[in-house]
Amino acid sequence: MNLINNLKWRYATKRMNGTKVPKEKVDQILEAIQLAPTSIGIQPFKVFVVESETMRKKIHAGACPQPQVLEGSHLLVFAARESLTNEEVDGYINSIAKTRNVPVESLADFRKMVESPQPMDANSYFAWAARQAYIALGFGLVTAASLEVDSTPMEGFNNAMMDEVLGLKEKGMRSAVLMALGYRDPKTDYLVNAAKVRKPVSELFEVL
Amino acid sequence: MNLINNLKWRYATKRMNGTKVPKEKVDQILEAIQLAPTSIGIQPFKVFVVESETMRKKIHAGACPQPQVLEGSHLLVFAARESLTNEEVDGYINSIAKTRNVPVESLADFRKMVESPQPMDANSYFAWAARQAYIALGFGLVTAASLEVDSTPMEGFNNAMMDEVLGLKEKGMRSAVLMALGYRDPKTDYLVNAAKVRKPVSELFEVL
Repeated sequence: MNLINNLKWRYATKRMNGTKVPKEKVDQILEAIQLAPTSIGIQPFKVFVVESETMRKKIHAGACPQPQVLEGSHLLVFAARESLTNEEVDGYINSIAKTRNVPVESLADFRKMVESPQPMDANSYFAWAARQAYIALGFGLVTAASLEVDSTPMEGFNNAMMDEVLGLKEKGMRSAVLMALGYRDPKTDYLVNAAKVRKPVSELFEVL
Repeated sequence: MNLINNLKWRYATKRMNGTKVPKEKVDQILEAIQLAPTSIGIQPFKVFVVESETMRKKIHAGACPQPQVLEGSHLLVFAARESLTNEEVDGYINSIAKTRNVPVESLADFRKMVESPQPMDANSYFAWAARQAYIALGFGLVTAASLEVDSTPMEGFNNAMMDEVLGLKEKGMRSAVLMALGYRDPKTDYLVNAAKVRKPVSELFEVL
């Protein structure tokens, strides 16, 4: 399949059959998420890869009753940060210096750029950080489709409960969006044969 | 190249060489954007595909002085909506009915779900709509990389000026994010050989 055909094949899978996605495919999906670009490169989020059945049951019971949480084999929780810490900036600048073999001092101007979105209140920072996480979500969804792994992006969950279950508040993060991984169940998923509905090119795009 | 290698090859290209991206590749990138999932499937955004040099010069002069606007061949402006109109809901429901050959009446409950995020003020609706656009941005970036087309996602521009240049206010939209398409210029782009800096797996992910 070429990539566009993979994207036509994918859909927001409503029911999954419990088959486990093999580790090597999960790892590729995570690598795509890791490679996704973010504003100024800061990657202001963390992804919780929930594989444990106990934990998925806890999330299903308290934060997200959708069946994919249990019927998929992995639930990715994208958690975005509420603020930029000095520790994070230090880590990022040191990582650039090390990876590119340049002195930290040569990055002084870039450091100022990294720090420039501050001061921002927690809501604004989170909103910005969540948008970066959504780019990575896009990378994850495309890569899952390219591997013929089904996935479901999910926004409709109880964010406060999710934050509690994962202890995100103490970590200065909030849950932003979910992505379930697994395999479609043609017997129970009413959407499995439904034609994809999208706005026509003439409506979604305007060429100037 | 497999997809992960394409994602390693891509980077936020700073300088482009002016070579035009062929129509068939641009069309594939747009198709991926069209196929990207959005919450409840509403696709609450529009993408302006700015190809005209006159228009790109206008944007470069007023809203985004980055060189990729002129050195790339296409600038995609993702504009997200400020509200959900009845017209949009009608269009969406009718489109599902037609595409899936079901009576409009059978979609009454679904219609209620589509309408449920309302009432929301313009800022909140835009924030939500912009997040959906960022998923599509992710789809566009991955697909560009898969075709070995360079691209640059850009947030740092004058949104108010961009909205003015494109007349977005009258259309109930605001600019959210940009994506330049073109080809890297190894002679002038200081980032062309820079190693990619990303958070290590152990920091970006937590397996539960």
